[in-house]
Amino acid sequence: MTQLTPGNTEQHTSSSSDAANPQWGGRFASGPAAIMEEINASVGFDHILWRQDIRGSLAHAAMLRKVGLLTEEEENDIRRGLADIARDIEEGRFDFSPALEDIHMNIESRLSERIGEAGKRLHTARSRNDQIATDFRLWVRDSIDGVLKQTEALMAGLATQALRYHDVPMPGFTHLQVAQPVTFGHHLLAYVEMLSRDASRLSDARARLNECPLGSAALAGTSFPIDRSMTAQELGFDRPTANSLDAVSDRDFALEYLSVLSMEAMHLSRLSEEIVQWASAAFNFVHLSDAFTTGSSIMPQKRNPDAAELVRAKVGRITGDLVGLLTVMKGLPLAYAKDTQEDKEPVFDATTAITLSLAAMDGMIRDLKPNKERMRELAGAGFSTATDLADWLVRELRLPFRTAHHVTGRLVSMAEQKTCDLADLSLEEMTSVEPNINASVYDVLTVDASLASRTSIGGTAPANVKKQAEAWLERLSK
Amino acid sequence: MTQLTPGNTEQHTSSSSDAANPQWGGRFASGPAAIMEEINASVGFDHILWRQDIRGSLAHAAMLRKVGLLTEEEENDIRRGLADIARDIEEGRFDFSPALEDIHMNIESRLSERIGEAGKRLHTARSRNDQIATDFRLWVRDSIDGVLKQTEALMAGLATQALRYHDVPMPGFTHLQVAQPVTFGHHLLAYVEMLSRDASRLSDARARLNECPLGSAALAGTSFPIDRSMTAQELGFDRPTANSLDAVSDRDFALEYLSVLSMEAMHLSRLSEEIVQWASAAFNFVHLSDAFTTGSSIMPQKRNPDAAELVRAKVGRITGDLVGLLTVMKGLPLAYAKDTQEDKEPVFDATTAITLSLAAMDGMIRDLKPNKERMRELAGAGFSTATDLADWLVRELRLPFRTAHHVTGRLVSMAEQKTCDLADLSLEEMTSVEPNINASVYDVLTVDASLASRTSIGGTAPANVKKQAEAWLERLSK
Amino acid sequence: MTQLTPGNTEQHTSSSSDAANPQWGGRFASGPAAIMEEINASVGFDHILWRQDIRGSLAHAAMLRKVGLLTEEEENDIRRGLADIARDIEEGRFDFSPALEDIHMNIESRLSERIGEAGKRLHTARSRNDQIATDFRLWVRDSIDGVLKQTEALMAGLATQALRYHDVPMPGFTHLQVAQPVTFGHHLLAYVEMLSRDASRLSDARARLNECPLGSAALAGTSFPIDRSMTAQELGFDRPTANSLDAVSDRDFALEYLSVLSMEAMHLSRLSEEIVQWASAAFNFVHLSDAFTTGSSIMPQKRNPDAAELVRAKVGRITGDLVGLLTVMKGLPLAYAKDTQEDKEPVFDATTAITLSLAAMDGMIRDLKPNKERMRELAGAGFSTATDLADWLVRELRLPFRTAHHVTGRLVSMAEQKTCDLADLSLEEMTSVEPNINASVYDVLTVDASLASRTSIGGTAPANVKKQAEAWLERLSK
Amino acid sequence: MTQLTPGNTEQHTSSSSDAANPQWGGRFASGPAAIMEEINASVGFDHILWRQDIRGSLAHAAMLRKVGLLTEEEENDIRRGLADIARDIEEGRFDFSPALEDIHMNIESRLSERIGEAGKRLHTARSRNDQIATDFRLWVRDSIDGVLKQTEALMAGLATQALRYHDVPMPGFTHLQVAQPVTFGHHLLAYVEMLSRDASRLSDARARLNECPLGSAALAGTSFPIDRSMTAQELGFDRPTANSLDAVSDRDFALEYLSVLSMEAMHLSRLSEEIVQWASAAFNFVHLSDAFTTGSSIMPQKRNPDAAELVRAKVGRITGDLVGLLTVMKGLPLAYAKDTQEDKEPVFDATTAITLSLAAMDGMIRDLKPNKERMRELAGAGFSTATDLADWLVRELRLPFRTAHHVTGRLVSMAEQKTCDLADLSLEEMTSVEPNINASVYDVLTVDASLASRTSIGGTAPANVKKQAEAWLERLSK
Repeated sequence: MTQLTPGNTEQHTSSSSDAANPQWGGRFASGPAAIMEEINASVGFDHILWRQDIRGSLAHAAMLRKVGLLTEEEENDIRRGLADIARDIEEGRFDFSPALEDIHMNIESRLSERIGEAGKRLHTARSRNDQIATDFRLWVRDSIDGVLKQTEALMAGLATQALRYHDVPMPGFTHLQVAQPVTFGHHLLAYVEMLSRDASRLSDARARLNECPLGSAALAGTSFPIDRSMTAQELGFDRPTANSLDAVSDRDFALEYLSVLSMEAMHLSRLSEEIVQWASAAFNFVHLSDAFTTGSSIMPQKRNPDAAELVRAKVGRITGDLVGLLTVMKGLPLAYAKDTQEDKEPVFDATTAITLSLAAMDGMIRDLKPNKERMRELAGAGFSTATDLADWLVRELRLPFRTAHHVTGRLVSMAEQKTCDLADLSLEEMTSVEPNINASVYDVLTVDASLASRTSIGGTAPANVKKQAEAWLERLSK
Repeated sequence: MTQLTPGNTEQHTSSSSDAANPQWGGRFASGPAAIMEEINASVGFDHILWRQDIRGSLAHAAMLRKVGLLTEEEENDIRRGLADIARDIEEGRFDFSPALEDIHMNIESRLSERIGEAGKRLHTARSRNDQIATDFRLWVRDSIDGVLKQTEALMAGLATQALRYHDVPMPGFTHLQVAQPVTFGHHLLAYVEMLSRDASRLSDARARLNECPLGSAALAGTSFPIDRSMTAQELGFDRPTANSLDAVSDRDFALEYLSVLSMEAMHLSRLSEEIVQWASAAFNFVHLSDAFTTGSSIMPQKRNPDAAELVRAKVGRITGDLVGLLTVMKGLPLAYAKDTQEDKEPVFDATTAITLSLAAMDGMIRDLKPNKERMRELAGAGFSTATDLADWLVRELRLPFRTAHHVTGRLVSMAEQKTCDLADLSLEEMTSVEPNINASVYDVLTVDASLASRTSIGGTAPANVKKQAEAWLERLSK
Repeated sequence: MTQLTPGNTEQHTSSSSDAANPQWGGRFASGPAAIMEEINASVGFDHILWRQDIRGSLAHAAMLRKVGLLTEEEENDIRRGLADIARDIEEGRFDFSPALEDIHMNIESRLSERIGEAGKRLHTARSRNDQIATDFRLWVRDSIDGVLKQTEALMAGLATQALRYHDVPMPGFTHLQVAQPVTFGHHLLAYVEMLSRDASRLSDARARLNECPLGSAALAGTSFPIDRSMTAQELGFDRPTANSLDAVSDRDFALEYLSVLSMEAMHLSRLSEEIVQWASAAFNFVHLSDAFTTGSSIMPQKRNPDAAELVRAKVGRITGDLVGLLTVMKGLPLAYAKDTQEDKEPVFDATTAITLSLAAMDGMIRDLKPNKERMRELAGAGFSTATDLADWLVRELRLPFRTAHHVTGRLVSMAEQKTCDLADLSLEEMTSVEPNINASVYDVLTVDASLASRTSIGGTAPANVKKQAEAWLERLSK
Repeated sequence: MTQLTPGNTEQHTSSSSDAANPQWGGRFASGPAAIMEEINASVGFDHILWRQDIRGSLAHAAMLRKVGLLTEEEENDIRRGLADIARDIEEGRFDFSPALEDIHMNIESRLSERIGEAGKRLHTARSRNDQIATDFRLWVRDSIDGVLKQTEALMAGLATQALRYHDVPMPGFTHLQVAQPVTFGHHLLAYVEMLSRDASRLSDARARLNECPLGSAALAGTSFPIDRSMTAQELGFDRPTANSLDAVSDRDFALEYLSVLSMEAMHLSRLSEEIVQWASAAFNFVHLSDAFTTGSSIMPQKRNPDAAELVRAKVGRITGDLVGLLTVMKGLPLAYAKDTQEDKEPVFDATTAITLSLAAMDGMIRDLKPNKERMRELAGAGFSTATDLADWLVRELRLPFRTAHHVTGRLVSMAEQKTCDLADLSLEEMTSVEPNINASVYDVLTVDASLASRTSIGGTAPANVKKQAEAWLERLSK
């Protein structure tokens, strides 16, 4: 949409007429027609659908010929004319006209100019209502395919790094407090899981949208003997839609796509937040590459994580796009209403945002270098193996869980007062709290022992993490 | 959440201490402890999960016994203790304590009081982090099952009415302007299509959430030799979750559920809007039953469509619930953070809203009586068969589509000037515009002819609509 | 933002490097640099701020000279250089470069090219952080002024029509059911009230934002002896901001603006909904002009209320813009973060949407022609003067209100059974229900009597409405 | 709203009737009536308005007496009856009945039971439509007053701490990277600024809502000779509302209140995020009190910042409440519609959330203890005085700003390679880059010198910060 420069907008103050009203001046000088064209014409954004529109027309023409509504020659004319138009658009030689409102009329009108009569027959048994529903589904389907590919690429990037760092200790946080040691690889794989759900949702959305509205006509279907199954198949749809009123008024496919993207963008915002924190002087966990940071002429050593911050923010606009379209659809009576013209810009905007976010995150992740020493240092801070001690008490001494926790708490307090680690307490000190403790307890009090012991399914044991990362890489390489 | 009465809330104005601060007075008189308990304790709403919590504990105990972490006797004690507690809760004899924070601690603490030692062993190899993730998934899964059943019941109600009125003409609208005749049954089936997508999304969401977090422990997995596959299976999950960090921090299942409900509530808002319009004096399309309307002591004939208005409005709160939780999750670092405690109330609220909406809509639809005369009258208004005329020109005279439209436009203008219908124009008048028109054109100019001709897949021809309605009813009866 | 055509987006699949990676191909062929430039550079949208940026630089330069940080000659060079740049931009001869990231660097870099040394001194004692905060506030302030003017124009349009139709009866609806007669003028004035609150909120927002961030520098203020009050005054601000950290991180002014626009757009959506309903065949209350409707080649008599539908929908995107920015700001630590770069597009988008909506609504309202006969007919339908009867019983017979309602209810039932109006009941019939009723009751049972009697402040009596409309027109003409 | 336990909800599957339908079972066993009562009755939540409802009735009765519609005795009966009811409610002896739908009917019906005839006269010249609009405005006004008081208390808490720590250095961050030193007091005062805008917005919202809808009746005003100015004044309103249709359909006051709370909650989320980060082991900037943290039985030293996390999350539900109500209002035709009954729960929910958030944040801030050593250490990290060096070059050597930045960058690189601070570079090393540097440069390279130099208005110089904090405390003490 063209952005307005404030101050440029003069509104009209008199009854409208076709002639320009001198009082209006400026932006809407030519009167209501200028306002109406600007609010009503969609070609300013829906020209993006030109490929889909032409694809749809080719399929429609082929079907019309098959059922006898076009001659072979007419279809050939149309086919050749559309090919010419496609070339013109691709090469920037097509002048989109707002006076022709939308992408459909822009293309059809040019077609008729070029090939005459046959062009005027193309719109038989269809309407702009089913045409836009078809074009837009095709576009969303293509976008889903693109986002899916990017999502899998990022999953592969994360899994690659997870494999490389499957045994690098880092603090596992709850409430951003050090809780228990985990491995960096384990942490990265958590995001692979999130993204795999996103991918799964994208696939489900794709399967659900894959029905063809073409042939629903304006709203009621048509009396022409068309073959909807043929156009559906030509366009790669699984079947024609089953109810013409629904087909021209439905925008679920756009809403579902936006809701899936909202969740995916939320996942990326979480990872971005972590990257921003990790890159801070306070954490100092990672080194970000120059490529995805900005510097400062005055502090050349600085690496501002701009890309991560921008990815973190993108969930805002995508959520906004979803809310916007849900609001548009609220309470709309059937069948077609012009309100639904507001469906495209949020989808285009969200697609751009997620595409950029995935590309930038992929780059950041592949370039990420952990600061292993600092990570290990903090992994052992704050008595992070206290749980291991408690579990040892349960396992080896068969203390009840709640009792074991109580004993551990007393030992942690003791170590805190002595400002030493749990492993630095002597066996005497230990047994002063719980007499049955023996020297084998020291085996579980190190970061590495803690990590190695978490072998339950999904646990952080390096061997587990390695296997998971390899499994993901294998699955993704297929 | 307890609602505050405004004016009751005194905030503290001095440094906090454990003792009550006389300056605070009122609501938070007992000092920070009162504030903290109120903001922190979740049992005020998460007690709703008591069934799921007990189910989870039973499965966990069975598994602990199998792997040797509990004796048979201990498990039996636990089983009996939990059964007692379940009975107490069901019969309203269980006193939930905010001091014990959440449903887990309320139940576990009571269990230990009752059965002693064994109760203290139950929490072995789990944490509240994986416990709440499990409980909540179970609850959402149950809710999905309930909403699915209601959705299918409403689909059946709509299809039943669609079958009954498959051939009743009503105006098909675009822009709320009369466009072409459709049948009332066709219109109702459009909503069956929408709801079938909702049902499909609910099923996909259910399948995706059906993994068991139990055994992920606090965040890193556990060193105990637990059998996560066994608990997963006991609880009806397809498998254990694959990454412990993800398992305790993930709330996708709640978000996806809320986004699916948003779309379903949006569909119901559209149908509600139509019911409100149809029931107005201006439309006068339907008669609503007393059951779902309110009257007026002063105008006993009045039927205010309150239920329809309330259903129309519910999409607001459900969208709000979704936005709220997306906002909560934005930028949260791993693993567990207390922020996620805000996940439950929106899900409970949205479930109540959709459940009520579906029940009320089901009642309204089954009671709906169309005013067939008024619908038919308006179905033929505004030259609604003009498209049929144009299609005839294309089909019979092989005029190009755009030319046929032009001819039709001229005939409509003629009829408008004569304030008659298209069918009332004489053949002379017709041929004065397009010489090749012949008398067979009159066959397509009636509402019934128009309806009968729309036989394309998904079109409004009564025979089509009947078949569709029957197919839905058969599918839904399985 | 540049829209992506799906399928064009190739993501990189290998570790990044400065050299182009052949595997990337397509869109991001030149490697991470291309991704980073696309996600990071803001000049693609923030070039809209060029006027504000130059205004700010001129004020800054004047201040620097006053405090001795620039010589007179240097300031003159800067002034002349910026004037040249302004002319270039206005005339479309300025080439904005994404490599220079944002509008500030684009202008400053060009300035240095042109005037050398002095250009390099301009950035003394400021940073891009306070610069963008200043530019954007100026832009929002200008936009508020524009939206205010448009809002008042629409209020004037509504009040003009309200005056013209101050005594034209129409049905007053509750639940879209006919409740009591009102006048069309009264109904239109309800929207003037709504818009006057919008205007009031815009004014409050303007007053609150009118503080100047310039001089806050990067985040901590500056050690240069600058005069912030002078720049504030030069730029029309009331005062400098009081805290430098807040000044560079605050986006309240954008959020408040968006929230005010959301409410205004919601008001417009209500009026649009009414216009769409009124223009339907079922209501047939108004005639819309050709200017703001679209026709159909096939149904030349049709007037699709496209503009009204689009205005109705715009509240979606504006609400989405608000949600988007609120989400961006959630949980952002101080001071400047790159996330806030996402503040501008939603504000630009919402401004375009509200500006178009107000212009289109203004045109529609001024052209609106009521169908008085149809409105009057429905105004009297459904026993709409029953309340007048009940009030008469309270006033003349001093029946308690609830008793009067009961009596009225019985009379309405009687009339309904006889399918006549209340006024058609005989005095015998009336007194058979309430013996004290006398013939003067008939005076209150007509639509006109009902209207004339509602003389309470804010009531619908035509004399009231006339006075209100005149008062608004006078207030707005000042 | 009563929460549903899933599985309890049986929906009906047959045509509804007044008698219970055995097929329905469970929850809605008694048929449509049960569904309708549950979706339609509002007393489950609007009973919270009982004080406002009684206040409104007392004012209405006093006015009715004044204008002669009630006798003195009748008014006295009403006054006494309402006082009794108020006492009953306060003491928990009032049984709210869903069958009576809402708070108004519950109270009025009880009143009539108690005092007979006079009770039936109270509803003269009003309707539930203007009554609820009045009650709810009163409630929101009271809430604004409460939130304002809490906001000012938190501002005072922040300013008190800012004064105490006005000269404690901490790193000022951009992009969470150390940028320049600021003081802890300066940082806290940034939040005072944000909250002062919130307070200002609350005041504006209060002023705007302060008009009295009472007397607008159902929608059209009334024919009774009421004195709306009197009731307005009695209830503390500035004036009566000016248009009856607007008065009963307007919910702007609720929306504006919610939008103001959204921004305030967003501010609190930012402060909460910082508290969570500051309390982490990585930052180690602050010590939180036990009162607003939770511990762990196993790690007694741990202080989980639960309260801060919950406050951070609350912005989610408040934003959701705003979006929900905006969605409800979208496209609603005038005048009263039942949809607006959905206005109250979001407002109650948001009020509870902000009230708790402000109370908890107030407690956390007053208890907060900074770790001064760690803050100072990081304040000087990362060459954070590089800007001071550059400014010195501009000021003392009159280098152009961009040149000074370039020189500084080279010196920072030099220091980085030597792994020393800027102040540790020798004068020779300095002059090797810029020959005119002299020894006085070392005066600006310390953290304290940097802080002290930022004396521009709003800058971080401790003297500035002290003055600001004192000014705030004085202003707030009034």
